[in-house]
Amino acid sequence: MIVVIKPNTVDEDVQRLIRMIEAQGVSIHYSKGIDHTILGIVGDTTLVDVEKIRSNQIVENVLHVQEPYKKANRLFHPDDTIIDVKGRKVGEGTISIMAGPCSVETEEQIVSIARSVKESGATFLRGGAFKPRTSPYAFQGLGYEGLDLLKIARKETGLPIVSELMSLEQLPAFEDVDIIQVGARNMQNFILLRELGKIDKPILLKRGMCATMKEFLMSAEYIMKEGNEKVILCERGIRTFETATRNTLDLSCVPVLKKKSHLPVIVDPSHGTGLSWTVEALSKAAIAVGADGVMVEVHNNPEEALCDGEQSITPAQFDKIMKTLKKYAEIENKVM
Amino acid sequence: MIVVIKPNTVDEDVQRLIRMIEAQGVSIHYSKGIDHTILGIVGDTTLVDVEKIRSNQIVENVLHVQEPYKKANRLFHPDDTIIDVKGRKVGEGTISIMAGPCSVETEEQIVSIARSVKESGATFLRGGAFKPRTSPYAFQGLGYEGLDLLKIARKETGLPIVSELMSLEQLPAFEDVDIIQVGARNMQNFILLRELGKIDKPILLKRGMCATMKEFLMSAEYIMKEGNEKVILCERGIRTFETATRNTLDLSCVPVLKKKSHLPVIVDPSHGTGLSWTVEALSKAAIAVGADGVMVEVHNNPEEALCDGEQSITPAQFDKIMKTLKKYAEIENKVM
Amino acid sequence: MIVVIKPNTVDEDVQRLIRMIEAQGVSIHYSKGIDHTILGIVGDTTLVDVEKIRSNQIVENVLHVQEPYKKANRLFHPDDTIIDVKGRKVGEGTISIMAGPCSVETEEQIVSIARSVKESGATFLRGGAFKPRTSPYAFQGLGYEGLDLLKIARKETGLPIVSELMSLEQLPAFEDVDIIQVGARNMQNFILLRELGKIDKPILLKRGMCATMKEFLMSAEYIMKEGNEKVILCERGIRTFETATRNTLDLSCVPVLKKKSHLPVIVDPSHGTGLSWTVEALSKAAIAVGADGVMVEVHNNPEEALCDGEQSITPAQFDKIMKTLKKYAEIENKVM
Amino acid sequence: MIVVIKPNTVDEDVQRLIRMIEAQGVSIHYSKGIDHTILGIVGDTTLVDVEKIRSNQIVENVLHVQEPYKKANRLFHPDDTIIDVKGRKVGEGTISIMAGPCSVETEEQIVSIARSVKESGATFLRGGAFKPRTSPYAFQGLGYEGLDLLKIARKETGLPIVSELMSLEQLPAFEDVDIIQVGARNMQNFILLRELGKIDKPILLKRGMCATMKEFLMSAEYIMKEGNEKVILCERGIRTFETATRNTLDLSCVPVLKKKSHLPVIVDPSHGTGLSWTVEALSKAAIAVGADGVMVEVHNNPEEALCDGEQSITPAQFDKIMKTLKKYAEIENKVM
Repeated sequence: MIVVIKPNTVDEDVQRLIRMIEAQGVSIHYSKGIDHTILGIVGDTTLVDVEKIRSNQIVENVLHVQEPYKKANRLFHPDDTIIDVKGRKVGEGTISIMAGPCSVETEEQIVSIARSVKESGATFLRGGAFKPRTSPYAFQGLGYEGLDLLKIARKETGLPIVSELMSLEQLPAFEDVDIIQVGARNMQNFILLRELGKIDKPILLKRGMCATMKEFLMSAEYIMKEGNEKVILCERGIRTFETATRNTLDLSCVPVLKKKSHLPVIVDPSHGTGLSWTVEALSKAAIAVGADGVMVEVHNNPEEALCDGEQSITPAQFDKIMKTLKKYAEIENKVM
Repeated sequence: MIVVIKPNTVDEDVQRLIRMIEAQGVSIHYSKGIDHTILGIVGDTTLVDVEKIRSNQIVENVLHVQEPYKKANRLFHPDDTIIDVKGRKVGEGTISIMAGPCSVETEEQIVSIARSVKESGATFLRGGAFKPRTSPYAFQGLGYEGLDLLKIARKETGLPIVSELMSLEQLPAFEDVDIIQVGARNMQNFILLRELGKIDKPILLKRGMCATMKEFLMSAEYIMKEGNEKVILCERGIRTFETATRNTLDLSCVPVLKKKSHLPVIVDPSHGTGLSWTVEALSKAAIAVGADGVMVEVHNNPEEALCDGEQSITPAQFDKIMKTLKKYAEIENKVM
Repeated sequence: MIVVIKPNTVDEDVQRLIRMIEAQGVSIHYSKGIDHTILGIVGDTTLVDVEKIRSNQIVENVLHVQEPYKKANRLFHPDDTIIDVKGRKVGEGTISIMAGPCSVETEEQIVSIARSVKESGATFLRGGAFKPRTSPYAFQGLGYEGLDLLKIARKETGLPIVSELMSLEQLPAFEDVDIIQVGARNMQNFILLRELGKIDKPILLKRGMCATMKEFLMSAEYIMKEGNEKVILCERGIRTFETATRNTLDLSCVPVLKKKSHLPVIVDPSHGTGLSWTVEALSKAAIAVGADGVMVEVHNNPEEALCDGEQSITPAQFDKIMKTLKKYAEIENKVM
Repeated sequence: MIVVIKPNTVDEDVQRLIRMIEAQGVSIHYSKGIDHTILGIVGDTTLVDVEKIRSNQIVENVLHVQEPYKKANRLFHPDDTIIDVKGRKVGEGTISIMAGPCSVETEEQIVSIARSVKESGATFLRGGAFKPRTSPYAFQGLGYEGLDLLKIARKETGLPIVSELMSLEQLPAFEDVDIIQVGARNMQNFILLRELGKIDKPILLKRGMCATMKEFLMSAEYIMKEGNEKVILCERGIRTFETATRNTLDLSCVPVLKKKSHLPVIVDPSHGTGLSWTVEALSKAAIAVGADGVMVEVHNNPEEALCDGEQSITPAQFDKIMKTLKKYAEIENKVM
């Protein structure tokens, strides 16, 4: 960590600041430039109260040399994290395919879709029971009943299930869900993250619509700090100025996230643009860019879907896409 | 609502779509252009399932003619909403001043600041007990103890208190808080909003860092739909590409929000840029642009603040600013 | 085009507006809703003065049904545009590889890089002579001498050359350049675009850092309107909130641009993130997502490069990447 | 400037880098941390080739301690720059009012508007002759004829004129224009900026739609470096996710720009939101926040304006606004 002192500061004030910082258990390298004096902080900088330094009147800026996350940082954990979910691996070397409808609607619907996507090679069944909707007048999901239907579909097909938890009081109902999804709007719901860090279950953490990679990894850190290191990162499109698509899928974050962190990275092309006809191209690109899997919305009748029909593909389209994806997984030497 | 049909669609498909839409209790105006056919939906369009229409294969686009919020919409509620908080008005015609520290630290600190800001003319005491922090390693607030200290300061000064609620399970502890604040990161925590709609207490709703005004008002709508119409909007800075400031305070949203909605609009200049030396200029501008008040961080010792010291001003600076703001309120013919 | 009339407008005013619009050679479909009256404009809407309608006091909004570009629009030109550059095709079915240094430095450097990249399979040589730099104190390129060196490298290798034109007065010197590049910062330099529309030479138009796809295609339209239809679109990364990378490469724009337009789309992964170690992953993803080629910065000694060394790969790395890209081109059934 | 070395770098490589940097005429402070080694560069860092350092394989990051602009930097030029334009001051202490139509249309129009705005107290006449338009099919301005009409209006009223130059070849025609405006889309047209630095005439430089303040000031630096220090900065709205307004006026940049630089800062509320009914509120706020003036679009018949009618106010509205602005200028102790 580097502290930049304002020009024309009297030396006495600098010395006082140095003593204040050193009292926090670190040491200081002092460097006097022509216009600016610089203090390099050496030691365990996570102990240091940055806010306090930054608020000091003689401080112009505090620069970070090192990423502020630790457990999620590849620097301290060079090996890839590979998460075992009911015998299926999620992480480097494997392409995981999480497929299913935006929202669970009926038993017939979810079981039928589950069977189709399993047949085509999906490894997980996704389905929303609780749906975050911008409008209070829109369909909000089946809730607890939706979770029950998902479990029926799991029983019928053996596919582990992924579903979104929206609020802490829903947690008991997710005890038997295989992967708990945290939605983009909850990426910085810190109290929720902290509690999810206390359970022993994989968490699929979606990137916030405007989050930087550092913020994304800091949210993973919130979970990991409490003990739960089974975090799967999921890029699902960021907000940009574009209006022709719902979001802009940021595929270029994948190699960067995988370099900075050891956690698995999954890509959701369906939310990425919100346009079903782009799903194939984006899924191929996700594998090519190094993602550990894709999460795809599949609906047996997109035109009648209660939610996000515009971005869902049919089981037949999914089957065709899977055949292509297998070729890409092969070039990448990955299991799919 | 307007539905744009794709070029070269056969008429039979258009007729089927028309029947599907009309079945939802609205009527259709049909208009055939050279390349595109257009359907105008007439009637109560909030009944219409937009997703379903958008997912139809023959539909190119659905355009909204009218804002999707109703209770927050000035079109249906032309008069300004003025909220009474313990005898103090918040809304058009009054400049409310909410001042206090980023986070409550000790009884001495909060009581002393409360006395100072009251002396200078503040009408509300703000103070954080639960603090959303990007890093899990940063100070997270005093929690319930912080709320107790705030209440002591209220007792000492008579200033109604404003504090942020981060999660539903904290709600019982806020029963005796005068205005409940919802932070920017929770602006789309829809379950939280819905529950806050069921209580009878003013909610200060902060705009999300990347939220459009429509999304902001839709979040207000979530609260109002359940019955609680005492919503105070608060602009606190949006995220832009700027790195010289923490956020970019969007003062230009104030006249637009006040035209589109009847709800009071407050501005938070402290979070707006994160730089204490801009607070005076931005507060003056907030009043000039038509805001109904400002929320300012004041700390007796910013250099020792446990949180956000960089953006806090001292009680002496606050006192000076208040004298200037009064002149602005006067020109605007507002009570302060 | 759809005109939304403000609520409570008297009918006489609406009739006057209708007459004004109809006088522009189009006809009107009139549709009266509960709160809003809507006018659908039928006919050649490019004749209509949108600004004038929008400024009318009774108009609430003007909605566009159809994209505002014509020559670049696939709707009016369903077949892919394939551009012939000295016998090499650029467009659907072919993967073009444009490789070379950020800036031309010496004859030895450019000839040596040209030979290497040709050997590895590149089809075009790129190299900057005029460099747009954020700082006036940074190296601004060799200028006209740089163009001469590029031509020597072309003579030595037979590779057609691509170079950036920064200002109209440089145009004569580009007469013998095979593809003229327009940089991201000039994407809306309308006078430059218009003049480039009057020559008969392929233009590689880079997307502005904050441009929407519609704006990007409107800039292509500026060139095409004057007669030059040989426009190659190039995605090179957009500005987002991310600070860990120089830009965010928007691969998801590729399928959308190719659907909306018939023009070739090239991807520049080097500028996309500014990090050389991401170039391989992003190039593979570019082919997988449907791009018609990639433009890659290659430098024989990135550490000594006068410009953008951080994002350049070595000829040896380029050679390795090319071998992988060929496998991807093969799956996609494209010539490379 | 601070160079952060990658973890686990061998000392020999660090020493080689130090020698390379020192060869550029600066000295190094070496500081070894637990994970990272840091080099502080002391001396005139503008001599240092940052790109070259950043491209070095052992370098993780280069952090800037000091702003990269010099002539525009208040650190080296503490006094406010006040520009004299035909006897009128632009800069700290004075509120300049630049008013007039988006585009010059006829002699009658421009003379009539000029007379009105002068009467109301405007100090400059603005009017566009060359108009940058997103669509090639939109009205592009009267061109050279427009400049002639502006000069007639100046002769009639004595108001100095401000008009936008779009391209270098137009420069001779601007010899007799009092302030040359550079539009937002040309803020990084570096060749244009450089040439404007060689003339002796005030330049009103508009901030790019997505430009940071640092980039804005670097563009001012391009002009100033060549000798022309008469640069007026103009905030005119930035692009955000908001769609209810054309742009988002960034009033919070004003105090920051005025602290970082000594140049005058003008605000353009008309382009700021694109909505004429917000101009009054935003103009008041501009003065309150510390701007040195406003640039306002005034049109005698906004509904018939050939350009931007939606954001223009009438002379009568302008007159009313001026009366209010004078009260604000008075509180701020500024001449208007």
